[in-house]
Amino acid sequence: MVDVNSLAALLPDGVVVTDPDILGGYRQDRAQDPEAGTPAALVRPANTEQVATVVRWAHERGVAIVPRGAGTGLSGGATAQDGALLLSTERMRDISVDPVTRTAVAQPGLLNAEVKAAVAEHGLWYPPDPSSFEICSIGGNAATNAGGLCCVKYGVTTDYVLGMEVVLADGTVVRLGGPRLKDSAGLSLTKLFVGSEGTLGIITELTLRLLPAQPPQSTVVASFATLEAACDAILAITGRLRPSMLEFMDSVAINAVEDQLRMGLDREAAALLVARSDAPGEHAGLEVAEIAALCEKAGATEVFATDDPAEGEAFTVARRVAIPALERKGPLLLEDVGVPLPKLGELVTGIAGIARRREVLVSVIAHAGDGNTHPLIVYNPADADESARAQQAFGEIMDLAIALGGTITGEHGVGRLKKAWLPNQVGPDVMALTRLIKSALDPQGILNPGAVL
Amino acid sequence: MVDVNSLAALLPDGVVVTDPDILGGYRQDRAQDPEAGTPAALVRPANTEQVATVVRWAHERGVAIVPRGAGTGLSGGATAQDGALLLSTERMRDISVDPVTRTAVAQPGLLNAEVKAAVAEHGLWYPPDPSSFEICSIGGNAATNAGGLCCVKYGVTTDYVLGMEVVLADGTVVRLGGPRLKDSAGLSLTKLFVGSEGTLGIITELTLRLLPAQPPQSTVVASFATLEAACDAILAITGRLRPSMLEFMDSVAINAVEDQLRMGLDREAAALLVARSDAPGEHAGLEVAEIAALCEKAGATEVFATDDPAEGEAFTVARRVAIPALERKGPLLLEDVGVPLPKLGELVTGIAGIARRREVLVSVIAHAGDGNTHPLIVYNPADADESARAQQAFGEIMDLAIALGGTITGEHGVGRLKKAWLPNQVGPDVMALTRLIKSALDPQGILNPGAVL
Repeated sequence: MVDVNSLAALLPDGVVVTDPDILGGYRQDRAQDPEAGTPAALVRPANTEQVATVVRWAHERGVAIVPRGAGTGLSGGATAQDGALLLSTERMRDISVDPVTRTAVAQPGLLNAEVKAAVAEHGLWYPPDPSSFEICSIGGNAATNAGGLCCVKYGVTTDYVLGMEVVLADGTVVRLGGPRLKDSAGLSLTKLFVGSEGTLGIITELTLRLLPAQPPQSTVVASFATLEAACDAILAITGRLRPSMLEFMDSVAINAVEDQLRMGLDREAAALLVARSDAPGEHAGLEVAEIAALCEKAGATEVFATDDPAEGEAFTVARRVAIPALERKGPLLLEDVGVPLPKLGELVTGIAGIARRREVLVSVIAHAGDGNTHPLIVYNPADADESARAQQAFGEIMDLAIALGGTITGEHGVGRLKKAWLPNQVGPDVMALTRLIKSALDPQGILNPGAVL
Repeated sequence: MVDVNSLAALLPDGVVVTDPDILGGYRQDRAQDPEAGTPAALVRPANTEQVATVVRWAHERGVAIVPRGAGTGLSGGATAQDGALLLSTERMRDISVDPVTRTAVAQPGLLNAEVKAAVAEHGLWYPPDPSSFEICSIGGNAATNAGGLCCVKYGVTTDYVLGMEVVLADGTVVRLGGPRLKDSAGLSLTKLFVGSEGTLGIITELTLRLLPAQPPQSTVVASFATLEAACDAILAITGRLRPSMLEFMDSVAINAVEDQLRMGLDREAAALLVARSDAPGEHAGLEVAEIAALCEKAGATEVFATDDPAEGEAFTVARRVAIPALERKGPLLLEDVGVPLPKLGELVTGIAGIARRREVLVSVIAHAGDGNTHPLIVYNPADADESARAQQAFGEIMDLAIALGGTITGEHGVGRLKKAWLPNQVGPDVMALTRLIKSALDPQGILNPGAVL
């Protein structure tokens, strides 16, 4: 085990933590990776200079570093490794907002909700909205190219990152891009680091593009007696309109949410769609009316539309609490597979088949409008046989997504839990290309080893 | 000189061209780089397999390849090199549109306008709109991360590229990304290749994200007696609204356009703004009225607003013809510098100072809403002294943009004409990072040598 005292000596008191009780709380992210190791130390730098000091120290010794945001990752991207440093960005929490350029410069440890709140003070909006937005960090969002509910209209994290400061594997600090909507000078390095899951560098600052505040949204909720009818409605909507949200819950999720919130969701429905429009003025209501009509045409058994923002927000919250509501039934394996929209029906029905064959409970919720689904596998870890079947289903769902021309992860990242499937999705040549870039930027392989590759 | 007969033998008749008369027309792009060399051959492959054959052949022999779209580049990215192959994508012109996924799969040789037309048949819209959209290729757009007029609201090319097929430096063909709005699987390689100007690989296919057809736009045109007042209006507008276009022309451009179009532009004005709104229904008119009010408040001498699409389009055309109209006055050095919006006034007045000091005519047109300006230096190449002063002004304008925290190129790319300034903008560490990636992907340096790096 490396002696971290020489690192502690380079940094203010409290930055390097070796207390095993504290370390214990940092060994895993929300993926609860059972393979988590014992880190040499937890490092909590307060600024870029301290991050660079840590990375230079590790570079000189060949010590690995696992970067970590708020620990809400669902693919084990922040799983601690034996003898490595766990670098948490939690103390890096500054933000400044420029309302004229309509940009914010944020440090990575700030939560997504804190970024939203800070820019809202200037009448501005940072769109990407993972369901975990109240507890996930903006740095982690950038590292995984996180998505969310509004992405169907507004795009994902990479669409909002104009620049960043990154500490490279040898401790060099570089600034990429900046507060310019257009910049074709040199390679698109900013975009390369977004979604690199800490394997190429450690993001210490982000320049984010902002939009004017989102207009009030109108909302429509539709129940369907079959999954097929719900998928038909989704394709009819996305083929004609641009809703600001288009979410899907299956019967298991509907009932789990209803158990928790008692808000009158249709427990008999096979699927529920929640769609919103933020078109200006009365156009939101008109767009929602069009969506309602398309749902009815696709065979919805019940359709409810409202212009009341609070009422609409209640349904959005219902969709967001689906994961915690299902967690009450037992630990979850959270999937994040996506397919091109025309394949959504095949994916959803195929997942139901996998659940039947493996005799596990799988609930599907989805950012339906962009084909990004979250099959949630509920299992009892104390039951070895059920755990094995859950793991089999986890893999088979990714196999199915790949077979349908889809992706094993739409917005959570590959981390450690999904890396065995990445070569099946992208093929050996893209893996080789990925390794070329990784080796060029991190020849010792000290940055988040074991993640992605 | 390499013997290209062995390449011609691998390909159908007509793909490899050595006729010097034909080659002559391909030696330069629109930048008219005087350093253009004599290529060994022009290669016009019809499909990916033929591109791969060419690249494998060149890879085995260490022969350089300069890829070329429609030759409308303004930074010399497609300047022919002595003894290299010029690879034109002009024969690769297939497109297929999937209205359900709202994506198009296009080959690189298709013109931007042809992509727009093909998707419009399905009621869809490909937003990026370089002023040269009728003559520039979609492959070149991706290679330079091209922008345009609507980017102030809708973003640039990279925001619309979901996937691609690329031939790497050794002839390997890889597929990156795909028709999925969300995909966090592995490194963001698609985004790395966008804007790489042919230095990392040759794009042979693009998967493009589309939007529903743009609603009809309302338009406002405002004249200003001073550059400062016009810049004040720009900041007032961008700080509050999201116009679908916000363009600027200075006095020289106004008069050049008026000379050509005789449409009644205010010849006395120091600057003209043309802004549009595509908000739904009557909201376009309301947004345009807000823009008009902000222009008046900033001191506009004349403001004209219209909901008539044809009338609005006429003013957009006026802005687009500014470059050809100025070309009537003499050859142009086309700049493409951008700054963070609050610095726009300093940039525009600074450029006027450079023009005075160097005694050259510089007209500034700009995609004002995103701080991306096109100072156009008019000069007489037969006058050696004026040419030298024009070149000095060209460099000083980039120096000024860098000093203001801006970029030497917002949407044209670095090519060969701007590469001497790139290190000043991004610094030695980012240059080193860029070289690491270039060396990893193209160790022989055969892909577009001399461009960017």
